[in-house]
Amino acid sequence: VPKRSPEYREARRRDILDGARRVFAAHGYEGATVVRLEEEIGLSRGAIHNYFPSKWDLFYALAVEDQSRATRLWLDEGYEAVVRHLVEQSPDWLGVYLELARQFRTHPELREQWDRRNPELNERLEARIAVAQAEGEIRDDASSDDVGTFLSVILDGLALRTGFGVRDDVDGLLRLVDSALAPRA
Amino acid sequence: VPKRSPEYREARRRDILDGARRVFAAHGYEGATVVRLEEEIGLSRGAIHNYFPSKWDLFYALAVEDQSRATRLWLDEGYEAVVRHLVEQSPDWLGVYLELARQFRTHPELREQWDRRNPELNERLEARIAVAQAEGEIRDDASSDDVGTFLSVILDGLALRTGFGVRDDVDGLLRLVDSALAPRA
Repeated sequence: VPKRSPEYREARRRDILDGARRVFAAHGYEGATVVRLEEEIGLSRGAIHNYFPSKWDLFYALAVEDQSRATRLWLDEGYEAVVRHLVEQSPDWLGVYLELARQFRTHPELREQWDRRNPELNERLEARIAVAQAEGEIRDDASSDDVGTFLSVILDGLALRTGFGVRDDVDGLLRLVDSALAPRA
Repeated sequence: VPKRSPEYREARRRDILDGARRVFAAHGYEGATVVRLEEEIGLSRGAIHNYFPSKWDLFYALAVEDQSRATRLWLDEGYEAVVRHLVEQSPDWLGVYLELARQFRTHPELREQWDRRNPELNERLEARIAVAQAEGEIRDDASSDDVGTFLSVILDGLALRTGFGVRDDVDGLLRLVDSALAPRA
Protein backbone atom coordinates (compact mmCIF):
# COMPACT_ATOMS: atom_id res chain seq x y z
CA VAL A 1 0.00 0.00 0.00
CA PRO A 2 1.63 3.30 -1.06
CA LYS A 3 1.93 5.95 1.62
CA ARG A 4 -0.22 9.03 0.94
CA SER A 5 0.63 12.55 2.00
CA PRO A 6 -1.51 14.20 4.70
CA GLU A 7 -2.70 16.69 2.04
CA TYR A 8 -3.83 13.86 -0.21
CA ARG A 9 -5.65 12.17 2.64
CA GLU A 10 -7.33 15.41 3.71
CA ALA A 11 -8.50 16.18 0.15
CA ARG A 12 -9.82 12.66 -0.28
CA ARG A 13 -11.58 12.80 3.11
CA ARG A 14 -13.20 16.07 1.98
CA ASP A 15 -14.39 14.52 -1.30
CA ILE A 16 -15.93 11.60 0.58
CA LEU A 17 -17.76 13.88 3.01
CA ASP A 18 -19.08 16.14 0.25
CA GLY A 19 -20.32 13.19 -1.78
CA ALA A 20 -21.89 11.53 1.26
CA ARG A 21 -23.75 14.74 2.13
CA ARG A 22 -25.30 14.78 -1.35
CA VAL A 23 -26.33 11.12 -1.07
CA PHE A 24 -27.89 11.59 2.39
CA ALA A 25 -29.80 14.68 1.22
CA ALA A 26 -31.08 12.91 -1.90
CA HIS A 27 -31.97 9.52 -0.42
CA GLY A 28 -32.17 9.91 3.35
CA TYR A 29 -30.12 8.05 5.91
CA GLU A 30 -31.58 4.60 5.25
CA GLY A 31 -31.55 5.18 1.50
CA ALA A 32 -27.83 6.05 1.46
CA THR A 33 -26.72 2.59 0.33
CA VAL A 34 -23.11 1.53 -0.18
CA VAL A 35 -23.72 1.40 -3.95
CA ARG A 36 -25.10 4.96 -4.02
CA LEU A 37 -22.20 6.22 -1.88
CA GLU A 38 -19.68 4.51 -4.17
CA GLU A 39 -21.29 6.00 -7.28
CA GLU A 40 -21.58 9.55 -6.01
CA ILE A 41 -18.17 9.65 -4.32
CA GLY A 42 -16.44 7.79 -7.16
CA LEU A 43 -14.53 5.48 -4.84
CA SER A 44 -14.92 1.83 -3.89
CA ARG A 45 -16.38 0.82 -0.54
CA GLY A 46 -12.91 -0.31 0.49
CA ALA A 47 -11.43 3.11 -0.19
CA ILE A 48 -14.27 4.85 1.65
CA HIS A 49 -13.91 2.42 4.54
CA ASN A 50 -10.26 3.51 4.98
CA TYR A 51 -11.56 6.91 6.00
CA PHE A 52 -14.93 6.10 7.57
CA PRO A 53 -15.54 2.63 8.97
CA SER A 54 -19.35 2.91 8.77
CA LYS A 55 -22.23 4.95 7.38
CA TRP A 56 -22.87 6.24 10.87
CA ASP A 57 -19.26 7.54 11.06
CA LEU A 58 -19.80 9.39 7.79
CA PHE A 59 -23.02 10.98 8.97
CA TYR A 60 -21.54 11.76 12.36
CA ALA A 61 -18.53 13.55 10.82
CA LEU A 62 -20.88 15.71 8.70
CA ALA A 63 -23.09 16.50 11.68
CA VAL A 64 -20.12 17.46 13.86
CA GLU A 65 -18.92 19.76 11.06
CA ASP A 66 -22.34 21.43 10.84
CA GLN A 67 -22.59 21.88 14.56
CA SER A 68 -19.07 23.30 14.82
CA ARG A 69 -19.82 25.77 12.08
CA ALA A 70 -23.09 26.83 13.72
CA THR A 71 -21.50 27.21 17.15
CA ARG A 72 -18.59 29.22 15.74
CA LEU A 73 -21.05 31.44 13.90
CA TRP A 74 -22.93 31.96 17.17
CA LEU A 75 -19.69 32.85 18.98
CA ASP A 76 -18.38 35.11 16.19
CA GLU A 77 -21.52 36.80 14.87
CA GLY A 78 -24.26 36.09 17.40
CA TYR A 79 -27.50 34.13 17.61
CA GLU A 80 -29.29 35.99 14.83
CA ALA A 81 -26.64 34.86 12.33
CA VAL A 82 -27.23 31.24 13.36
CA VAL A 83 -30.99 31.58 12.89
CA ARG A 84 -30.57 33.13 9.43
CA HIS A 85 -28.01 30.50 8.42
CA LEU A 86 -30.24 27.66 9.63
CA VAL A 87 -33.33 28.59 7.63
CA GLU A 88 -31.21 28.78 4.47
CA GLN A 89 -29.98 25.20 4.86
CA SER A 90 -31.08 22.48 2.46
CA PRO A 91 -34.41 21.04 3.69
CA ASP A 92 -33.28 17.67 2.37
CA TRP A 93 -30.13 17.62 4.43
CA LEU A 94 -31.90 18.90 7.58
CA GLY A 95 -34.48 16.20 7.02
CA VAL A 96 -31.77 13.58 7.51
CA TYR A 97 -31.35 14.71 11.11
CA LEU A 98 -35.06 14.26 11.69
CA GLU A 99 -34.90 10.69 10.42
CA LEU A 100 -32.32 9.92 13.06
CA ALA A 101 -34.68 10.40 15.99
CA ARG A 102 -35.50 6.69 15.97
CA GLN A 103 -31.84 5.67 15.82
CA PHE A 104 -31.02 7.89 18.77
CA ARG A 105 -33.83 6.42 20.83
CA THR A 106 -33.07 2.80 19.94
CA HIS A 107 -29.26 3.11 20.04
CA PRO A 108 -28.42 5.04 23.23
CA GLU A 109 -24.69 4.71 22.43
CA LEU A 110 -25.16 6.82 19.29
CA ARG A 111 -27.06 9.38 21.31
CA GLU A 112 -24.22 9.48 23.88
CA GLN A 113 -21.66 9.97 21.13
CA TRP A 114 -23.83 12.77 19.73
CA ASP A 115 -24.12 14.46 23.12
CA ARG A 116 -20.33 14.44 23.49
CA ARG A 117 -19.70 16.23 20.16
CA ASN A 118 -17.93 19.61 20.35
CA PRO A 119 -17.69 19.82 24.16
CA GLU A 120 -15.15 22.64 23.98
CA LEU A 121 -17.34 24.79 21.72
CA ASN A 122 -20.40 24.14 23.86
CA GLU A 123 -18.53 25.27 26.96
CA ARG A 124 -17.51 28.46 25.19
CA LEU A 125 -21.14 29.04 24.26
CA GLU A 126 -22.32 28.60 27.86
CA ALA A 127 -19.60 30.98 28.98
CA ARG A 128 -20.71 33.44 26.31
CA ILE A 129 -24.26 33.46 27.67
CA ALA A 130 -23.00 33.97 31.24
CA VAL A 131 -20.80 36.88 30.12
CA ALA A 132 -23.68 38.50 28.22
CA GLN A 133 -25.72 38.28 31.43
CA ALA A 134 -22.92 39.72 33.58
CA GLU A 135 -22.47 42.61 31.14
CA GLY A 136 -26.18 43.44 31.09
CA GLU A 137 -26.68 42.50 27.43
CA ILE A 138 -29.26 39.90 28.39
CA ARG A 139 -31.32 39.51 31.54
CA ASP A 140 -29.63 37.94 34.55
CA ASP A 141 -32.82 36.99 36.36
CA ALA A 142 -33.09 33.78 34.30
CA SER A 143 -30.49 31.01 34.66
CA SER A 144 -28.02 30.62 31.81
CA ASP A 145 -29.35 27.07 31.45
CA ASP A 146 -32.86 28.38 30.89
CA VAL A 147 -31.60 30.93 28.37
CA GLY A 148 -29.63 28.20 26.57
CA THR A 149 -32.64 25.88 26.48
CA PHE A 150 -34.91 28.66 25.18
CA LEU A 151 -32.50 29.55 22.36
CA SER A 152 -31.86 25.90 21.49
CA VAL A 153 -35.57 25.01 21.41
CA ILE A 154 -36.11 27.82 18.89
CA LEU A 155 -33.23 26.60 16.70
CA ASP A 156 -34.57 23.05 16.85
CA GLY A 157 -38.07 24.26 15.96
CA LEU A 158 -36.72 26.13 12.94
CA ALA A 159 -34.67 23.07 11.93
CA LEU A 160 -37.77 20.89 12.06
CA ARG A 161 -39.88 23.37 10.11
CA THR A 162 -37.18 23.94 7.48
CA GLY A 163 -36.76 20.15 7.19
CA PHE A 164 -40.53 19.88 6.62
CA GLY A 165 -40.32 22.54 3.90
CA VAL A 166 -41.88 25.40 5.92
CA ARG A 167 -40.28 28.79 5.28
CA ASP A 168 -40.76 31.11 8.24
CA ASP A 169 -40.23 34.86 8.31
CA VAL A 170 -37.59 35.08 11.02
CA ASP A 171 -37.50 38.86 11.51
CA GLY A 172 -40.54 38.95 13.75
CA LEU A 173 -39.36 35.83 15.54
CA LEU A 174 -35.99 37.41 16.31
CA ARG A 175 -37.64 40.53 17.70
CA LEU A 176 -39.67 38.41 20.12
CA VAL A 177 -36.55 36.45 21.13
CA ASP A 178 -34.78 39.75 21.86
CA SER A 179 -37.71 40.86 24.00
CA ALA A 180 -37.64 37.63 25.96
CA LEU A 181 -33.97 38.12 26.83
CA ALA A 182 -33.82 41.88 27.27
CA PRO A 183 -32.74 42.95 30.79
CA ARG A 184 -35.78 43.72 32.94
CA ALA A 185 -36.35 47.33 33.79
CA VAL B 1 -72.17 -7.68 3.54
CA PRO B 2 -74.16 -7.17 6.75
CA LYS B 3 -75.01 -3.58 7.65
CA ARG B 4 -73.23 -2.41 10.79
CA SER B 5 -74.57 0.15 13.24
CA PRO B 6 -72.82 3.54 13.44
CA GLU B 7 -71.78 2.62 17.01
CA TYR B 8 -70.18 -0.58 15.80
CA ARG B 9 -68.35 1.22 13.02
CA GLU B 10 -67.14 3.94 15.37
CA ALA B 11 -65.84 1.43 17.93
CA ARG B 12 -64.05 -0.53 15.23
CA ARG B 13 -62.55 2.63 13.77
CA ARG B 14 -61.29 3.50 17.26
CA ASP B 15 -59.70 0.06 17.68
CA ILE B 16 -57.96 0.38 14.32
CA LEU B 17 -56.58 3.83 15.15
CA ASP B 18 -55.37 2.77 18.60
CA GLY B 19 -53.64 -0.31 17.20
CA ALA B 20 -52.09 1.64 14.33
CA ARG B 21 -50.70 4.22 16.75
CA ARG B 22 -48.95 1.46 18.68
CA VAL B 23 -47.49 -0.03 15.48
CA PHE B 24 -46.24 3.36 14.22
CA ALA B 25 -44.65 4.13 17.59
CA ALA B 26 -42.95 0.73 17.78
CA HIS B 27 -41.76 0.40 14.18
CA GLY B 28 -41.84 3.85 12.60
CA TYR B 29 -43.84 4.86 9.55
CA GLU B 30 -41.91 2.75 7.03
CA GLY B 31 -41.76 -0.18 9.44
CA ALA B 32 -45.54 -0.22 9.96
CA THR B 33 -46.15 -3.05 7.50
CA VAL B 34 -49.55 -4.45 6.60
CA VAL B 35 -48.70 -7.67 8.45
CA ARG B 36 -47.77 -5.80 11.63
CA LEU B 37 -50.92 -3.68 11.41
CA GLU B 38 -53.06 -6.79 10.94
CA GLU B 39 -51.43 -8.51 13.92
CA GLU B 40 -51.66 -5.60 16.33
CA ILE B 41 -55.16 -4.52 15.32
CA GLY B 42 -56.47 -8.09 15.08
CA LEU B 43 -58.25 -7.49 11.76
CA SER B 44 -57.47 -8.45 8.18
CA ARG B 45 -56.10 -5.94 5.71
CA GLY B 46 -59.48 -6.02 3.95
CA ALA B 47 -61.33 -5.08 7.14
CA ILE B 48 -58.85 -2.28 7.89
CA HIS B 49 -59.10 -1.07 4.31
CA ASN B 50 -62.86 -0.57 4.73
CA TYR B 51 -62.07 2.19 7.22
CA PHE B 52 -58.74 3.51 5.96
CA PRO B 53 -57.78 3.02 2.31
CA SER B 54 -54.03 3.45 2.93
CA LYS B 55 -51.34 3.63 5.60
CA TRP B 56 -51.12 7.36 4.96
CA ASP B 57 -54.85 7.73 5.70
CA LEU B 58 -54.33 5.92 8.99
CA PHE B 59 -51.41 8.11 9.98
CA TYR B 60 -53.21 11.24 8.82
CA ALA B 61 -56.31 10.46 10.92
CA LEU B 62 -54.12 10.00 14.01
CA ALA B 63 -52.22 13.22 13.34
CA VAL B 64 -55.43 15.21 12.84
CA GLU B 65 -56.71 13.82 16.14
CA ASP B 66 -53.51 14.88 17.92
CA GLN B 67 -53.56 18.32 16.42
CA SER B 68 -57.25 18.81 17.25
CA ARG B 69 -56.63 17.79 20.83
CA ALA B 70 -53.64 20.15 21.13
CA THR B 71 -55.50 23.08 19.59
CA ARG B 72 -58.53 22.52 21.82
CA LEU B 73 -56.23 22.34 24.85
CA TRP B 74 -54.68 25.65 23.76
CA LEU B 75 -58.13 27.24 23.36
CA ASP B 76 -59.49 25.82 26.61
CA GLU B 77 -56.50 25.93 28.97
CA GLY B 78 -53.88 28.07 27.27
CA TYR B 79 -50.45 27.66 25.70
CA GLU B 80 -48.71 26.43 28.85
CA ALA B 81 -51.03 23.42 28.98
CA VAL B 82 -50.08 22.55 25.38
CA VAL B 83 -46.36 22.76 26.19
CA ARG B 84 -46.72 20.53 29.24
CA HIS B 85 -48.86 18.03 27.35
CA LEU B 86 -46.39 17.91 24.44
CA VAL B 87 -43.31 17.04 26.47
CA GLU B 88 -45.22 14.18 28.12
CA GLN B 89 -46.01 12.56 24.76
CA SER B 90 -44.43 9.27 23.75
CA PRO B 91 -41.05 10.02 22.12
CA ASP B 92 -41.65 7.05 19.83
CA TRP B 93 -44.89 8.42 18.52
CA LEU B 94 -43.52 11.97 18.10
CA GLY B 95 -40.59 10.43 16.27
CA VAL B 96 -42.98 9.20 13.57
CA TYR B 97 -43.79 12.81 12.68
CA LEU B 98 -40.10 13.53 12.24
CA GLU B 99 -39.73 10.64 9.82
CA LEU B 100 -42.38 12.21 7.65
CA ALA B 101 -40.30 15.24 6.71
CA ARG B 102 -39.02 13.45 3.62
CA GLN B 103 -42.51 12.39 2.56
CA PHE B 104 -43.80 15.94 2.89
CA ARG B 105 -40.96 17.29 0.76
CA THR B 106 -41.23 14.63 -1.93
CA HIS B 107 -45.03 14.42 -1.98
CA PRO B 108 -46.33 18.01 -1.99
CA GLU B 109 -49.92 16.73 -2.15
CA LEU B 110 -49.50 15.12 1.29
CA ARG B 111 -48.10 18.36 2.59
CA GLU B 112 -51.06 20.28 1.18
CA GLN B 113 -53.49 17.86 2.81
CA TRP B 114 -51.58 18.33 6.09
CA ASP B 115 -51.73 22.11 5.83
CA ARG B 116 -55.49 21.94 5.37
CA ARG B 117 -56.10 19.92 8.55
CA ASN B 118 -58.30 21.55 11.20
CA PRO B 119 -58.84 24.89 9.42
CA GLU B 120 -61.69 25.86 11.75
CA LEU B 121 -59.66 25.26 14.91
CA ASN B 122 -56.67 27.13 13.46
CA GLU B 123 -58.87 30.13 12.73
CA ARG B 124 -60.16 30.09 16.28
CA LEU B 125 -56.57 30.02 17.50
CA GLU B 126 -55.61 33.02 15.38
CA ALA B 127 -58.68 34.86 16.65
CA ARG B 128 -57.71 33.93 20.21
CA ILE B 129 -54.28 35.55 19.77
CA ALA B 130 -55.83 38.70 18.30
CA VAL B 131 -58.29 38.95 21.20
CA ALA B 132 -55.49 38.49 23.77
CA GLN B 133 -53.68 41.38 22.08
CA ALA B 134 -56.77 43.59 22.02
CA GLU B 135 -57.41 42.91 25.70
CA GLY B 136 -53.83 43.72 26.70
CA GLU B 137 -52.95 40.18 27.82
CA ILE B 138 -50.16 40.00 25.26
CA ARG B 139 -48.28 42.75 23.46
CA ASP B 140 -49.98 44.33 20.45
CA ASP B 141 -46.82 45.79 18.91
CA ALA B 142 -46.03 42.43 17.25
CA SER B 143 -48.30 41.05 14.52
CA SER B 144 -50.50 38.12 15.48
CA ASP B 145 -48.72 36.19 12.70
CA ASP B 146 -45.36 36.79 14.36
CA VAL B 147 -46.76 35.76 17.73
CA GLY B 148 -48.26 32.62 16.17
CA THR B 149 -44.97 31.73 14.45
CA PHE B 150 -42.99 32.29 17.65
CA LEU B 151 -45.28 30.04 19.69
CA SER B 152 -45.40 27.38 16.96
CA VAL B 153 -41.61 27.31 16.51
CA ILE B 154 -41.25 26.64 20.24
CA LEU B 155 -43.80 23.80 20.13
CA ASP B 156 -42.04 22.30 17.10
CA GLY B 157 -38.65 22.59 18.83
CA LEU B 158 -40.02 20.77 21.88
CA ALA B 159 -41.60 18.12 19.63
CA LEU B 160 -38.25 17.50 17.93
CA ARG B 161 -36.35 17.34 21.19
CA THR B 162 -38.91 15.05 22.83
CA GLY B 163 -38.81 12.84 19.72
CA PHE B 164 -35.02 12.67 20.06
CA GLY B 165 -35.38 11.65 23.70
CA VAL B 166 -34.33 15.02 25.23
CA ARG B 167 -36.29 15.98 28.33
CA ASP B 168 -36.31 19.75 28.85
CA ASP B 169 -37.29 21.61 31.99
CA VAL B 170 -40.13 23.71 30.60
CA ASP B 171 -40.70 26.03 33.59
CA GLY B 172 -37.84 28.37 32.72
CA LEU B 173 -38.77 28.19 29.05
CA LEU B 174 -42.36 29.23 29.78
CA ARG B 175 -41.20 32.19 31.86
CA LEU B 176 -39.11 33.43 28.92
CA VAL B 177 -42.01 32.94 26.53
CA ASP B 178 -44.22 35.00 28.86
CA SER B 179 -41.61 37.76 28.90
CA ALA B 180 -41.42 37.81 25.13
CA LEU B 181 -45.18 38.33 24.85
CA ALA B 182 -45.82 40.59 27.83
CA PRO B 183 -47.27 44.00 26.86
CA ARG B 184 -44.49 46.59 26.62
CA ALA B 185 -44.42 49.21 29.34
